[in-house]
Amino acid sequence: MRGAVLYGPRDVRFEERETPKVIKPTDAIIRISATCVCGSDLWPYRGIQPIAQPTPMGHEYCGIVEEVGSAVKSVKPGQFVIGGTAQAPVLRVPLADGTLVPTPEVPSQDLIPNLLTLSDVMGTGWFAADAANVKPGSTAAVVGDGAVGLLAVLSAKQMGAERIIVMSRHESRQKLAREFGATDIVTERGDEGGERIKQLTNGIGADSVLECVGTQQLMMQAIQSTRRGGYVGYVGVPHGVELNGEQLFFAHVHLHGGPAPVRRYLPELIKLVWDRKINPGKVFDMTLPLDQVAQAYRAMDERRAIKTLLRP
Amino acid sequence: MRGAVLYGPRDVRFEERETPKVIKPTDAIIRISATCVCGSDLWPYRGIQPIAQPTPMGHEYCGIVEEVGSAVKSVKPGQFVIGGTAQAPVLRVPLADGTLVPTPEVPSQDLIPNLLTLSDVMGTGWFAADAANVKPGSTAAVVGDGAVGLLAVLSAKQMGAERIIVMSRHESRQKLAREFGATDIVTERGDEGGERIKQLTNGIGADSVLECVGTQQLMMQAIQSTRRGGYVGYVGVPHGVELNGEQLFFAHVHLHGGPAPVRRYLPELIKLVWDRKINPGKVFDMTLPLDQVAQAYRAMDERRAIKTLLRP
Repeated sequence: MRGAVLYGPRDVRFEERETPKVIKPTDAIIRISATCVCGSDLWPYRGIQPIAQPTPMGHEYCGIVEEVGSAVKSVKPGQFVIGGTAQAPVLRVPLADGTLVPTPEVPSQDLIPNLLTLSDVMGTGWFAADAANVKPGSTAAVVGDGAVGLLAVLSAKQMGAERIIVMSRHESRQKLAREFGATDIVTERGDEGGERIKQLTNGIGADSVLECVGTQQLMMQAIQSTRRGGYVGYVGVPHGVELNGEQLFFAHVHLHGGPAPVRRYLPELIKLVWDRKINPGKVFDMTLPLDQVAQAYRAMDERRAIKTLLRP
Repeated sequence: MRGAVLYGPRDVRFEERETPKVIKPTDAIIRISATCVCGSDLWPYRGIQPIAQPTPMGHEYCGIVEEVGSAVKSVKPGQFVIGGTAQAPVLRVPLADGTLVPTPEVPSQDLIPNLLTLSDVMGTGWFAADAANVKPGSTAAVVGDGAVGLLAVLSAKQMGAERIIVMSRHESRQKLAREFGATDIVTERGDEGGERIKQLTNGIGADSVLECVGTQQLMMQAIQSTRRGGYVGYVGVPHGVELNGEQLFFAHVHLHGGPAPVRRYLPELIKLVWDRKINPGKVFDMTLPLDQVAQAYRAMDERRAIKTLLRP
């Protein structure tokens, strides 16, 4: 079997790896229906987050259970499952009961991109909105127009935000943001972008700001765009971010973020997709066969694709 | 009339100032019953936060309304009020309707220290517990054994915390912390202090950590002592604090703090004091006449007093 392995900056290879099998009684073996590249994988891909040795890549997938260990209780062979580990056609999932959630039935093909997003990217956008305390009637601002940012827009809409401001300069991403529920687009960046959000909210700032990138500039902009007493949810893995304590203190915001608890949201999000209430799979604007995984990374790195779906 | 004025590091003078009078229709004139020194005043007192010119000090007081401007609706002469501006026997309070809250009646003398704390220090401890999401049954840890920290203990107890860990090395402060509801005392500092809190909570960390100092070391300790998904409430004005974004991200805590919205809590806290449910005035372990205000600063600076009450 072959799978995706990162060797160094911008060097992803699709190469022969051992075919997975049940090792521990809590394992499950999954045959992948679809997988994709995560924005957070771009940090090591770009060499910003160095790797010590060739590293198997990918952690977003969905597929059919082929085999389970003797201690696995909640999933069984033949079920379609969503979880959150490697870009390869078959994989071994440890602690399967805790990691995998089955869908009601094997889904039709058109639902697969939607379900695939639930393995990470959609749960991350959802967590951004949840951490930022989006409530019915809120004004939310989304910093970042990558797949997470766009799904943060969809999440804020689903949670009842009345106004959703998104920062984006890319026409195709602006269009998708509007489809997902964005009401205002801000094209300015940095301090000017923050000022624009203040203007759009009568000088007060947004109730909820969803930071979906993780740079110093955008993190500070998120904090400055939030109203006093408001909430910042941050899900972009911070790289080189330092927050000044005094500035944060007088900004008087609530700050919450971290790795998204994707597993927690799966039952609710599977239901929303199953009932065709949300279409998060629209973020996939490119589909490639899995053996072209290196192309998928390149397209996302160069921002030619929002997110690439890979089919075995 | 004379009042307290800071001239430079450790130089507080009690000197002649103009007697206040109603200038705007929204003003009120208050004759002070008691005032005190705030921990945050120690930053400029120590010269850590430099002042540009001689500065009148103090912002915690309670007293009797002497006169109100024509537009003041919610307080009237003769009422006892709590508010949050200067160490002097008489003072002018702008925007009196928004700033001052009257008590049901003129209080008996023994209630005055309790009521005085509501003007700032108690509201700050309460905000620490509120920002740290203390709920019935929670485990809370309090970083700092100054007056705010001790009242944060009292607040956590009042909000139903089952276990309250306080960091303190001073016997008299430990004793008061226990009276206010602390169940465990940690005497270790820095990383060791954080480790001790982890040990006391089965390696998990506290649900709520209340940071009441504002230094880099203690802020990081607060974050590291909190369980994943838990809450840090920070009310010590940060001085030279820088938070590493990645560390904060993977700590997965909720962070909220800032200047305490003391006015918001006044009605509830006045009721608790009036009904003799809480005795926050116990933090005053020294009482001096107002003209000895310089002594009051010295005693708090040298940690000989937890908090000094000043009587005109």
